Amino acid sequence: MSDSDLLNSNFVAWMDSRAGSESDIVISSRIRLARNLQYITFPYFMNAESGNKSMQEISDAWKNSELLSQMDLITFDQTSTLDRQILVEKHLISPEHGLSAESYRGLLASKDGSIATMINEEDHLRIQCLLPGLQLEKCYKLAQEIDDELEQQLNYAFDEHRGYLTACPTNVGTGMRSSVMLHLPAIAISGQRSRIFQNINQLGMTVRGLYGEGTEIVGNYVQLSNQITLGQTENEIITNLGIISRQIVEQEKMLRKSLQEEMKYQLEDRVGRAYGILTNARVMNSNEALALLSDVRLGVDLGIIEGISLFVINQLVVAIKPAHLQKRNGGEMEAFIRDVKRAEVIKEILLKSSK
Amino acid sequence: MSDSDLLNSNFVAWMDSRAGSESDIVISSRIRLARNLQYITFPYFMNAESGNKSMQEISDAWKNSELLSQMDLITFDQTSTLDRQILVEKHLISPEHGLSAESYRGLLASKDGSIATMINEEDHLRIQCLLPGLQLEKCYKLAQEIDDELEQQLNYAFDEHRGYLTACPTNVGTGMRSSVMLHLPAIAISGQRSRIFQNINQLGMTVRGLYGEGTEIVGNYVQLSNQITLGQTENEIITNLGIISRQIVEQEKMLRKSLQEEMKYQLEDRVGRAYGILTNARVMNSNEALALLSDVRLGVDLGIIEGISLFVINQLVVAIKPAHLQKRNGGEMEAFIRDVKRAEVIKEILLKSSK
Repeated sequence: MSDSDLLNSNFVAWMDSRAGSESDIVISSRIRLARNLQYITFPYFMNAESGNKSMQEISDAWKNSELLSQMDLITFDQTSTLDRQILVEKHLISPEHGLSAESYRGLLASKDGSIATMINEEDHLRIQCLLPGLQLEKCYKLAQEIDDELEQQLNYAFDEHRGYLTACPTNVGTGMRSSVMLHLPAIAISGQRSRIFQNINQLGMTVRGLYGEGTEIVGNYVQLSNQITLGQTENEIITNLGIISRQIVEQEKMLRKSLQEEMKYQLEDRVGRAYGILTNARVMNSNEALALLSDVRLGVDLGIIEGISLFVINQLVVAIKPAHLQKRNGGEMEAFIRDVKRAEVIKEILLKSSK
Repeated sequence: MSDSDLLNSNFVAWMDSRAGSESDIVISSRIRLARNLQYITFPYFMNAESGNKSMQEISDAWKNSELLSQMDLITFDQTSTLDRQILVEKHLISPEHGLSAESYRGLLASKDGSIATMINEEDHLRIQCLLPGLQLEKCYKLAQEIDDELEQQLNYAFDEHRGYLTACPTNVGTGMRSSVMLHLPAIAISGQRSRIFQNINQLGMTVRGLYGEGTEIVGNYVQLSNQITLGQTENEIITNLGIISRQIVEQEKMLRKSLQEEMKYQLEDRVGRAYGILTNARVMNSNEALALLSDVRLGVDLGIIEGISLFVINQLVVAIKPAHLQKRNGGEMEAFIRDVKRAEVIKEILLKSSK
């Protein structure tokens, strides 16, 4: 079994809201580069032989590089289902990747989780860099370093005209996806979400929920990412996403200000009730917890609640997920008992931090 | 203006839950005797002349009796609308009586509010005794003492065959109504209220809300009273109501026990959330406050919440009413500002008492 800290601590780099800019509204920035190895079947069509070959090459690259060998290589035959769920909940691997238990699938990640390269997910390599706040350029720089290091050791599938070749045609070209996770409660409270996001697609951007593709928006967390990887340079993609993110951040700030001015008491009431329920409930499901934590986070941002840090809230949003609760409890729990445990964990962490 | 303590303190006798039996479930017991003066028009048809004559006779009786003169005589031309509302909210006078501002209408009440005799409400005299918990016999004894004292000074309208004559035929005979105020959250939570109360009418009893006739049931407070005054002796009426009350108290206790056994977490959750909202909300209307206080009261009864007394909750149920809030604030407030003030008062009183 892997003993990586990523499986055992509540912390990953993107949670540290003290770093990065706009980190009250921009939870995290992510750059993902899709890369594939030459002459090896894409993972979708892989069998054990081609899978093991791919993993072997990547594992050799890891061992042979001073930079890469500082990271943890976690192969999924060495992890439990629960531990893979832990990685999903921390946003280090995709939900689909978490379902795999083959020895040739895995994760190459830095100790603090700022780099998390999925191995044999949809592509052979998906290099991800994930940092707190709005810092796409830095994410790209770090991802590039890993990419360069891997490319020195491995032969990438690359076409001079098309760029990096990928399993899904939407990723061909730069193979890059950049995304930001935004917390937008005022846009939601003001009922402006559909208005603000209706033109996003026309700008080549996509809006998703907390756990990416196909997940609904809960807790007012919105993931914004570029849809097109072909015909734009990496820098253009990052610049565009940065500009649109800042515009949305400005809208959110403006709406927060008008809520504070025009609905002071109602806003304080909403935040206060959320805090009161979170610190006194005995049973709570995940979606309710996320919705209430969103209100508390807004209260912290606006100075209505003091003493609780955004860092704690970022940790809590992950700590209350099923796998983290079960890990903390030391074993599987049925849904109702999880809801009881979740209420306990929330109360404990919030009361400790607001002292 | 009257300076009676009943207008200025938060306390009246029925709130003191340390006295009386079953006072976790039975909030208060009340005996009311309807009496009228001979040869004076019933209040419904009164003009200033007959009204003043009636008040004069009662006022003389008050002055001439050692027992009665220890009480406060409040005439409604000497009280503000707000102060009469204060008396309504403390359950010392009826909502209709609170609307009168004539000099010939008023209240003759003991300093602690255990005796509250309405003057020229529907009848010339409505002697009420109101005590905490289940103690109908004691209420009747105290009401009788006042009745005897008044009868020594006044000529009652009395018919040998019909008994005491009253404005409304349903009161003729004993002129007595006995009632208990019950707090029945477990019956409500279990959805058993209509089943349990459907046969009450056949037993000659009526179920009403917190402020009597025509008021809805809020906060799970149910007022149970006898409907018939004719053909039963006072003692029969009291005995019957006592028996039925104890049966309902037993049902409530049984249902509380099964909630504790079968829905422990959900019950603690409900109580905890209510406490959390009450101590953290910023805006709260009266019905929501009563509903949440009902949950907290249940939590206190069952030992889920410690440190808060039923006495405090009894006071709070009255202190959050509009007139009490405005009195505390020193003037009229519009509804929204009252909701803000209500949330403040609840938070202050609950947090102070749970320390």
